[in-house]
Amino acid sequence: MHDKAAIVPEISRLPARLSAALAERFGARFATGLAVREQHGKDESSLPPLPPDAVVFAESTAEVAAVAALCHAERVPLIPYGTGTSLEGHLHAVRGGVCVDLSRMGRVLAIRPEDLDATVEAGVTRKALNAALHGTGLFFPIDPGADASIGGMAATRASGTNAVRYGTMREATLAATVVLADGRVIKTGTRAKKSAAGYDLTRLFVGSEGTLGIITELTVRLHPLPEAIASAVCAFPSIDAAVQTVIQTIQLGIPVARIELLDALTVQAINRHSKTRLREAPTLFFELHGSPAGVAEQTEALHAIAVEHGGMDFEWADQPEDRSRLWQARHDAYYACLGLQPGARSITTDVCVPISRLAECIAATRADLERTGLVAPLLGHVGDGNFHMLLLVKPDDDIMLAKARGFAQRLAERAIAMDGTCTGEHGVGLGKRKYMALEHGDDALEVMRAIKMALDPDNIMNPGKILPD
Amino acid sequence: MHDKAAIVPEISRLPARLSAALAERFGARFATGLAVREQHGKDESSLPPLPPDAVVFAESTAEVAAVAALCHAERVPLIPYGTGTSLEGHLHAVRGGVCVDLSRMGRVLAIRPEDLDATVEAGVTRKALNAALHGTGLFFPIDPGADASIGGMAATRASGTNAVRYGTMREATLAATVVLADGRVIKTGTRAKKSAAGYDLTRLFVGSEGTLGIITELTVRLHPLPEAIASAVCAFPSIDAAVQTVIQTIQLGIPVARIELLDALTVQAINRHSKTRLREAPTLFFELHGSPAGVAEQTEALHAIAVEHGGMDFEWADQPEDRSRLWQARHDAYYACLGLQPGARSITTDVCVPISRLAECIAATRADLERTGLVAPLLGHVGDGNFHMLLLVKPDDDIMLAKARGFAQRLAERAIAMDGTCTGEHGVGLGKRKYMALEHGDDALEVMRAIKMALDPDNIMNPGKILPD
Repeated sequence: MHDKAAIVPEISRLPARLSAALAERFGARFATGLAVREQHGKDESSLPPLPPDAVVFAESTAEVAAVAALCHAERVPLIPYGTGTSLEGHLHAVRGGVCVDLSRMGRVLAIRPEDLDATVEAGVTRKALNAALHGTGLFFPIDPGADASIGGMAATRASGTNAVRYGTMREATLAATVVLADGRVIKTGTRAKKSAAGYDLTRLFVGSEGTLGIITELTVRLHPLPEAIASAVCAFPSIDAAVQTVIQTIQLGIPVARIELLDALTVQAINRHSKTRLREAPTLFFELHGSPAGVAEQTEALHAIAVEHGGMDFEWADQPEDRSRLWQARHDAYYACLGLQPGARSITTDVCVPISRLAECIAATRADLERTGLVAPLLGHVGDGNFHMLLLVKPDDDIMLAKARGFAQRLAERAIAMDGTCTGEHGVGLGKRKYMALEHGDDALEVMRAIKMALDPDNIMNPGKILPD
Repeated sequence: MHDKAAIVPEISRLPARLSAALAERFGARFATGLAVREQHGKDESSLPPLPPDAVVFAESTAEVAAVAALCHAERVPLIPYGTGTSLEGHLHAVRGGVCVDLSRMGRVLAIRPEDLDATVEAGVTRKALNAALHGTGLFFPIDPGADASIGGMAATRASGTNAVRYGTMREATLAATVVLADGRVIKTGTRAKKSAAGYDLTRLFVGSEGTLGIITELTVRLHPLPEAIASAVCAFPSIDAAVQTVIQTIQLGIPVARIELLDALTVQAINRHSKTRLREAPTLFFELHGSPAGVAEQTEALHAIAVEHGGMDFEWADQPEDRSRLWQARHDAYYACLGLQPGARSITTDVCVPISRLAECIAATRADLERTGLVAPLLGHVGDGNFHMLLLVKPDDDIMLAKARGFAQRLAERAIAMDGTCTGEHGVGLGKRKYMALEHGDDALEVMRAIKMALDPDNIMNPGKILPD
């Protein structure tokens, strides 16, 4: 969160030759108006916008390649844009340049039920893909909350509530079409489920946040829709008891599809916002997928583990309406939490630690929080050891802002010290660059820089992201 | 398979200064004798040995780093060695140099049952890790057949029979310690189950076959031992019927742990070798893991699917002795097949295709085989679309050797044309380099070369592997 708004130049600073070439090729799909540029120079983080000099609405891989070739000739930055829902300043045009809006690349190119995969253009959103899968008996499980584009999700290595069962975009992406810095187009990977044929370029581009190339098409794995689904909610006497329940559940191999932790404050916020009457205590939300008998068996095992750790008010929901009421409350948690401090914005943290350290990490973090006087509800994908604190801060309260920044930094450092990561699923963008050296070490960061230099020697692919200056 | 044996120089060609430095530092663990060098210049492929100039038996990451720093100063190649069980000439010293034998790095450094992970030195074999896990209720599932070192398995992105359920070394490797070309040591990844913190260096080194760095330690994922296991064997009227059974099993989300296809010839070989009385027809071997009720339910569903596709002689084995008899026969298939042509060696292929193309790929391959007159039993990890043909050829039969090479090439090209890969799990080494351009395209191969140049500008890390000259 910056204290001053950025100064937005009103006239595009692109080289005239480039502007003319883009205007000729893309007509009205080459936009330099302030409103469009401002809209493309921000994400859902609290960073003030840094607009690009122009936006091109691309409709095919060939068009993205053409933009890249033109920008490359003039050494002008290129920033890919999906739905604008990232959280760490991934879209900010720190050195100006051309934003390539991929949202019109929204075609589902192939669905192959026999192979449990689909090929989509980068602008297809996860909900659009799931709508297209209707009737196939399959679904695309990665769910980061926002209805993000699948290209953007791959670029930030997104995950979400059911990663504990179905993995992240790292596991979900089989193959990609990528436009390189100079406009060449490559395909990474094949549709084979596994391969030992050389360097894993797919996994290199997944999570590279547009800094090595622009993903324009992807082949993703699908999963069979579970025959039966059950959800449950259970309150615990302490966060530690809830976390121990999670650890034991996973150790026993119970294949939970979702297992989410909310602290008492988050539950309070949900009760106020969603008119629920949940006990205001540390709470786990579960979801189980499987055959009816399998889910029943898992339900029983899970119940026993929870009770053993002092779980109270165990409430099961196997009817769709009850389930969606429960998960709606969970999904509304972000807005519910914002309601705790009217006028506040949220600075969101995203650490992920080995699950054995989770209770300790949360305890130390809450003790730190108390010392700061900040209000910060907690919610997390605890099956993966990933949790978020929503630091509620009024934008004009400089003292609390500084405290929030210090708290977020200590939390990231604490997670890294526990052999965890500063970001489990949001990505680095601008916001987390300062932790990269601490998390990876100087030499590993040098390896990342060497790869960046090898693939983008002019530093025109989403410059300023991931790697500290 | 080369026609002439390589000429083995009897005296190490290392620069004198390097030899002296290595001898001083490693004493008797620096070996230049012909026998040791010859043993380290080959793997289980049919390629004749190409010995390194010397072998160092390293006992720690610091020692590997010291060797790398010394070799780097003289621009002398470095080749990592685990158990020598790779299959594509990964260990051949095409430009001489120093082989770093990691087999003495055999310590299990940590087992963390709460986190379902373990940290091991690279020389720990998969069986040694599973022995160390005894009593924890956990196991390490990746099983390529050979008792390979876990470092070597990561370097070649190995997998095996139960990858369909538990994934490959790509999914199994959480973090690694890597010695770079100049002797610097980096850590890739953390113990967090997921991360969005920059380029995925772990996945870059997994499958890089020692060409970018030497993996000296790894943190790998473990899994809970299943409460119940059931195995089954079932014969089918045709390969297509067997493959359709596999497709439907996976589409229904039945979480099979293993699903292996053997053709009639392989079953015949097994019957002869293992004194079994299996019907000599295309056959599936299954294994199911889960709770007793879950396994029973899966068993029933699987049986119904198999019968629907004409499955015959369905035989279940839920007792450990029956199971191990069944799987012993499957594991002995390689030797059983060699017995079909006494004196023959096997040239092994390793294609992997989308499962929807598997029946077609196998049919075209068998038709091709008939035209060549070669004998080649088939067996495969069909849940992943991966199968091997064991081309049985007498080493002195030049005509059949040429036919086998042509057949293997057509098979690789066929798989690539079906959006598959020339190697599902064996790696590229020397043997599959010629398919890299066809599989990845020239520009993607250029990206791989750029990465290789960035991390190993002097081309001293296992030179000659993966990338064609």
